[in-house]
Amino acid sequence: MTHKLPQPLMRLVSHLKNLPGVGTRTAVRFAFEILKFKQEELDDFSQILATLPKEVPPCAECGCLTDLGQCPFCKERTSDALCIIASPKDAYAIEQTSTFQGFYHVIEHLLSPIDQRHAESIDIERIENRIKERGIREIILAFDSTLEGDATALYLKARLAQEGLFISRLAFGLPVGTSLEHIDGGTLARALSGRQSMQNQLHK
Amino acid sequence: MTHKLPQPLMRLVSHLKNLPGVGTRTAVRFAFEILKFKQEELDDFSQILATLPKEVPPCAECGCLTDLGQCPFCKERTSDALCIIASPKDAYAIEQTSTFQGFYHVIEHLLSPIDQRHAESIDIERIENRIKERGIREIILAFDSTLEGDATALYLKARLAQEGLFISRLAFGLPVGTSLEHIDGGTLARALSGRQSMQNQLHK
Repeated sequence: MTHKLPQPLMRLVSHLKNLPGVGTRTAVRFAFEILKFKQEELDDFSQILATLPKEVPPCAECGCLTDLGQCPFCKERTSDALCIIASPKDAYAIEQTSTFQGFYHVIEHLLSPIDQRHAESIDIERIENRIKERGIREIILAFDSTLEGDATALYLKARLAQEGLFISRLAFGLPVGTSLEHIDGGTLARALSGRQSMQNQLHK
Repeated sequence: MTHKLPQPLMRLVSHLKNLPGVGTRTAVRFAFEILKFKQEELDDFSQILATLPKEVPPCAECGCLTDLGQCPFCKERTSDALCIIASPKDAYAIEQTSTFQGFYHVIEHLLSPIDQRHAESIDIERIENRIKERGIREIILAFDSTLEGDATALYLKARLAQEGLFISRLAFGLPVGTSLEHIDGGTLARALSGRQSMQNQLHK
């Protein structure tokens, strides 16, 4: 007879299994590690979980996470560039690069007919209002290089196109530090067709 | 200027980083996923964290986890075999195999002079009392196949040795399903020196 884990531990495991890439085995390992946490640690961990959504509500304007009620982007910046992203966490990845100083706009998800995520669920009007109010002249579409990302970029480009607005998408090409022999054909094809002039290249 | 994550999210990340094998990048990914959990889920996750140690206290006799106050091993079993393990979770791994029906005994940790875990921290008397009270005739030492596991097994064998008590340790050898070419020399040497007779082999 195989003995199951105690019921409270199973409840913890079921929550941990909702984390990305965590299966039963890893969740059980995590749960036993959590059993070793000190009570103060557990209390703090517990408290932050219960209050998290209240403490970091999305910015009403751009949808990024606020910190102590303030959006770190909308309130502090002046720019005519708007970067459209599919998740608040993408903003932090882009900020890490220190190459963009404009505004962000979070759409809730990429288009995906299979997952019932259709075009009408993207609030185009809200984006158009921001373009008008902020005097945006450049839109950068920063989506995954997947079918869903492609579909969403094409859709937004068609819907937002207007006189005097430059719309671009993140470049496709070789990831930095890879050897050509490890690059798949699709990436290589797009790196070729999107080849970049070395004339105007920025020197760091 | 790189924007940091909101402070409450950073607090969550710091707890998640205490899980085994989870670095900053993974912890941040987990935290953003947790942000998407429903409030009921978060409340339950939070509550279980705060009450966990109270809900699954160790069994006073064997040190395994109890479930609703009951130890699933000490109360239900009759056996003259005692398996000594270094963590309650090892009991569940052994139970999964359905090949052991005896008692368990958890020592808090393996001997490790580097980590200041010395022999005197293992309560030998408690084990000896159980051997007497339960009429134990076989001890199985189920420790990691590491230096620390070796040291602890040798120490316990020397301390517990007595007339009429058979002491064994988990076998060393080839993991099931591996090819010889992938086996390290140390494992192969122990598989050879501990080679098992095929005469009395059990057929499944």
